[in-house]
Amino acid sequence: MNTCLDKPTIETCFTPALFPYIITKEKYIVVIIDILRATTAICTAFKNGATEMVPVAKIEDTGKYRPLGYMIAGERDGIVIEGADFGNSPFNFTEENVKGKKIVITTTNGTQTVEVAKSCNTIILGAFSNISVLADWLISQKKNVVLLCSGWKNKFNLEDSIMAGDLALRLMQNGFVSNCDSTAAAIDLWNIAKVDVLAYIEKAAHRHRLKRLGLDDVLEYCFTPDTAEVIPVLQNNAFFNILKK
Amino acid sequence: MNTCLDKPTIETCFTPALFPYIITKEKYIVVIIDILRATTAICTAFKNGATEMVPVAKIEDTGKYRPLGYMIAGERDGIVIEGADFGNSPFNFTEENVKGKKIVITTTNGTQTVEVAKSCNTIILGAFSNISVLADWLISQKKNVVLLCSGWKNKFNLEDSIMAGDLALRLMQNGFVSNCDSTAAAIDLWNIAKVDVLAYIEKAAHRHRLKRLGLDDVLEYCFTPDTAEVIPVLQNNAFFNILKK
Repeated sequence: MNTCLDKPTIETCFTPALFPYIITKEKYIVVIIDILRATTAICTAFKNGATEMVPVAKIEDTGKYRPLGYMIAGERDGIVIEGADFGNSPFNFTEENVKGKKIVITTTNGTQTVEVAKSCNTIILGAFSNISVLADWLISQKKNVVLLCSGWKNKFNLEDSIMAGDLALRLMQNGFVSNCDSTAAAIDLWNIAKVDVLAYIEKAAHRHRLKRLGLDDVLEYCFTPDTAEVIPVLQNNAFFNILKK
Repeated sequence: MNTCLDKPTIETCFTPALFPYIITKEKYIVVIIDILRATTAICTAFKNGATEMVPVAKIEDTGKYRPLGYMIAGERDGIVIEGADFGNSPFNFTEENVKGKKIVITTTNGTQTVEVAKSCNTIILGAFSNISVLADWLISQKKNVVLLCSGWKNKFNLEDSIMAGDLALRLMQNGFVSNCDSTAAAIDLWNIAKVDVLAYIEKAAHRHRLKRLGLDDVLEYCFTPDTAEVIPVLQNNAFFNILKK
């Protein structure tokens, strides 16, 4: 495998619990992935005109944002939390609901992952929804990248891993290198999955969790590439869309 | 996916760092996997007549065993530790070297993994070396199984994951069930790898580490199935071969 030192590198981290073991050079960009459904929802919100998305890890931290004019989106284990305007289905974040709005969001896995990665240089959000603009932007940055999958309660999940594989493959076709076994595995899994992503994801445990909760209406949307030309970047504890037109 | 409650389950844990997040029913068997090279070496030692293998996590813990008549096998990052009789290449554990001997062993990843799993009911060691007898024995036990990959310093690795996939597939073909995404991924990776395992493992970072250290002479052996009809089981802090004839 090519390990030329002047080429940007990719490391893939299958769950936040493994993030402390990632070894990279000092400057890097972390791409947080939580396909079902946090990062897909946030990309959708920005596409539909939300101006700011604040991720908070604890439910109790959402309350203080209400008096400041924020909407509240929150769930735990797929259930909308008490007092929230809505949960984290991407279908809630319509233009009608979110245009011009600031939103605070807390989810089972995604926002916890942000907390884990906060010490890093640059944190952005990735989903199939924004994969092409994201890949183009990362290629233009030429910085080392860590693909941080949110997983499910610190366990490996398929949906985030295959998206990491899709993104890693695009980057490696454009000058990035990797000597990380996780990246190789993610690409292999993506190469199996891409033949029929929705059929592949039938294996995923979280797909079944959502089905039991009646929340699986979003599946096709969550695995559709390029529905949102946005790049959410963390700046002072809130995400903003740096591709805003 | 079948989740009948009366069928034994499989969970796959890609690194020891993820073991605390495994959720299983109370009684289960943990299979520790460290293909390059600890579990392969220990299977080889038992096949060649070693009577007892004591895993210790710290190098300094090996010294007290010498006066008790133990041989010492130890390495860190592929290098033999000072004072050891040999490192953990399976080729060291010849009949001439180990027949009738008790051995204490410490390795970079494998023996640390034993420490992580020590609270569990039953701990056994798995490698391609003993995969068929291991699968048969697990099928006969009808207990829930956790496949615990040693990884590399708590990161995911390919070699342990594909062996987990091979073993999981054999168990699922014999009445075990899984709704764990890691197991599904391990099986997918194994199905890619099995076409030509040695070619596949060229991707693995540790394969390159061993090559740099001149220790990759063991590769073909480590991926050869069924070279050792042994099942190492932990009893009172030492492994014994319960298939001893």
